[in-house]
Amino acid sequence: MKKVVVIGTGKVASHLTKALLAKDIDVAQIVARSEESAQRMMQVIGTNIPYTTQKSAVINDADLYICSVKDDAITQAIEGIEIPENALLVHTSGSTNSLVLAPFATHFGVLYPMQTFSYGKEVDFNKVALYIEANNNTFTNKLHLFANKLSHNVKIVDSDTRTKVHLAAVFACNFTNHLYSLAEKVLAEANLPFADLLPLIDETTEKVHTLSPAEAQTGPAIRHDWPIIEKHIAQLKGKEKNIYQLLTESIQNDQL
Amino acid sequence: MKKVVVIGTGKVASHLTKALLAKDIDVAQIVARSEESAQRMMQVIGTNIPYTTQKSAVINDADLYICSVKDDAITQAIEGIEIPENALLVHTSGSTNSLVLAPFATHFGVLYPMQTFSYGKEVDFNKVALYIEANNNTFTNKLHLFANKLSHNVKIVDSDTRTKVHLAAVFACNFTNHLYSLAEKVLAEANLPFADLLPLIDETTEKVHTLSPAEAQTGPAIRHDWPIIEKHIAQLKGKEKNIYQLLTESIQNDQL
Repeated sequence: MKKVVVIGTGKVASHLTKALLAKDIDVAQIVARSEESAQRMMQVIGTNIPYTTQKSAVINDADLYICSVKDDAITQAIEGIEIPENALLVHTSGSTNSLVLAPFATHFGVLYPMQTFSYGKEVDFNKVALYIEANNNTFTNKLHLFANKLSHNVKIVDSDTRTKVHLAAVFACNFTNHLYSLAEKVLAEANLPFADLLPLIDETTEKVHTLSPAEAQTGPAIRHDWPIIEKHIAQLKGKEKNIYQLLTESIQNDQL
Repeated sequence: MKKVVVIGTGKVASHLTKALLAKDIDVAQIVARSEESAQRMMQVIGTNIPYTTQKSAVINDADLYICSVKDDAITQAIEGIEIPENALLVHTSGSTNSLVLAPFATHFGVLYPMQTFSYGKEVDFNKVALYIEANNNTFTNKLHLFANKLSHNVKIVDSDTRTKVHLAAVFACNFTNHLYSLAEKVLAEANLPFADLLPLIDETTEKVHTLSPAEAQTGPAIRHDWPIIEKHIAQLKGKEKNIYQLLTESIQNDQL
């Protein structure tokens, strides 16, 4: 699979395209919803590549069509694009079944990068875990070879397994990042900057490289240090208070 | 402050003692609750230093007495130890007011290392954020000089501020680590190892070194991707389901 079309211009599409270009893979065309979104993507990836905003103008001699848009926009983004018989169509979603692509292509599958992508932050794609699948062995193998060019960390999984992977990622990344956000708010009340927490955050991450999260658990909850827990709860209100209580209970229940 | 007594043999006491010894600071004596706890600490720190299990045998010519025990055991651990008039007595707790030490010493304060300490994981103390206070300027300055030997990152804060710091640390470290634990469970249902999440966890951490947590937020919650959110919730039950819902709501509320 040498010639690639990327459908979509968002964060995942941009980071993925950048990674493809860095590996000298021919991204022959970008399919954008609008002129503005195409322009913004070119700025993000730092180079100009061919693009179209017309589905009728999508090239029909590529080997791989990668649809990387919001999960609920996938079918809409593909509808009207003619995918050639001998090409593979994939989406990049963690929790969308590959079968949503069945109406649009003979060969279809998934290339899900389990990673958090933001504008303004480079990602080393070599280390990104890629979860792939295709609807037949020939294209599973082709996609595997292709994915291996991008990352050393490729696994073939079915759609049900991939949903579990995505769910785990939400806990380990999205929810974790939100806790950083809540911690930032608490520190701000004491006029201290978020940066003060970075050595602690780094060490928390580093620890689970050598200890299991259960072994690595510390803090008032696991110590059942109720005077401190009550002191903390008294300083919180609203959702922060509920989150503190629920996570404290959860830590203590898992310990039993 | 050249001669130090450490009261306590737990994780914080052990890591702190190891760091003091590494800086050639004279830890003249450890005060242990029992022979066993003293022996275990010597194994953890990897060297033998003098210790006592008898409060009457605690030396009375040290400059600094550091009480590093569980928060609700602080007064009990110190009671019966004679702290010399010209020495400083500190505890290492994030959320305990320094005033609990007032009955035991003329000069008292706090040396709180905001870090997560586990057995079997070394910590670079140079980077640990140390929050200190003392009940008079002379000893605040002395403690500051002392703390600077341990870490490049020392701040003088009062007890109320320190409680906020500790509360922020619970969100950023203890709760975050528990989310890793929940993610591990979800992955295990798909027969995948926790290690698969490490590149994602590393990137999540790396991002908040250059973006604020609010800027770094990704995932179905912030995208209001309800089909995915509902698919995830349908796979969860009990406390994991409650945590998913509460954190999703919290991410969406903070966005408004």
